[in-house]
Amino acid sequence: MRILEERILEEGQVYPGEVLKVGSFLNQQIDTGLITEMGREIASKFKDEGVTKILTIETSGIALAFATAQALGVPMIFAKKHKSNNLDPVLISTKVFSYTHQSTYDVVVSREFINSSDNILIVDDFLAKGNAIMGLLEIIETADANCAGAAVAIEKGFQNGGKKIRDMGIKLLSLAIIESMTEDSLTFVKQD
Amino acid sequence: MRILEERILEEGQVYPGEVLKVGSFLNQQIDTGLITEMGREIASKFKDEGVTKILTIETSGIALAFATAQALGVPMIFAKKHKSNNLDPVLISTKVFSYTHQSTYDVVVSREFINSSDNILIVDDFLAKGNAIMGLLEIIETADANCAGAAVAIEKGFQNGGKKIRDMGIKLLSLAIIESMTEDSLTFVKQD
Repeated sequence: MRILEERILEEGQVYPGEVLKVGSFLNQQIDTGLITEMGREIASKFKDEGVTKILTIETSGIALAFATAQALGVPMIFAKKHKSNNLDPVLISTKVFSYTHQSTYDVVVSREFINSSDNILIVDDFLAKGNAIMGLLEIIETADANCAGAAVAIEKGFQNGGKKIRDMGIKLLSLAIIESMTEDSLTFVKQD
Repeated sequence: MRILEERILEEGQVYPGEVLKVGSFLNQQIDTGLITEMGREIASKFKDEGVTKILTIETSGIALAFATAQALGVPMIFAKKHKSNNLDPVLISTKVFSYTHQSTYDVVVSREFINSSDNILIVDDFLAKGNAIMGLLEIIETADANCAGAAVAIEKGFQNGGKKIRDMGIKLLSLAIIESMTEDSLTFVKQD
């Protein structure tokens, strides 16, 4: 998606450890116009898939997941990163390892919000090694629901998460795929 | 806001400790149509205030903050609940005590996203004792920005947060104000 790639080139900052910071428009300060457009783009690619719900993990995927859900006219759900006493006792949970934070956390969704009649589209901001999406896939499987696919804003194409998910036969849409990045240069994988 | 009050009466569940669960439409599963309407309602009440940005705290206020920011055509920012190595070194931070989780946490925003030319509208899902909003007010003050007001989905009118904030002279909009709630009955404060 050209407007996203341009924005990454203008404002993205690359830090050691393959960290790309896009906090000025994507995941701390949110450019609502851009995220709304990105949600519409994802929705247009999944509009014929019979999606019943959008699923994301808190926190930084919520705005894009919401924009996608708006465009498809379906509810969205976010999985929570640790148990809260505000959650139902009947939870679906899994464990996810975060490379960003170098720690493992529990991810939980109330069982009442996903069931076997659901066809879930996963939405997140970043895809690197794919751990967050793998965790959400496990939740969808535990709920006996179907996965319609996954969509992310930015895929780090030089890591293996995207390949792993595509190899599972899951339809994956990445609005921008980074081919390589250093502090001085950043290139994208050309997409159709 | 009548459609919100009706939804609370239909789906809200009251638990011991004055906990109101609205996870089926507001803060775990998100009814995108309802939240979009709520965002428009908040925007309509603040459209003449010259709001430059929406500020919320992760996690459960993000969807409503995003919908409000969309309707006003401004960016939104969410304060993060603990330090992340994905944040800028230059942070504005404060401490907030959560009654829900019975713990104190740090709340941080990158200094680059709020400055003295900003007129910030705070948006959150719940207002009880007002600690989250007080924390965000402190962040706005530290950044030398102005606060245009605050808006929440649900105010627990029987706790003192709303009074505290109104007494400070801050324009506060609560889409629903709960007068009293028990496991068997729930009443709202009548608003104009």
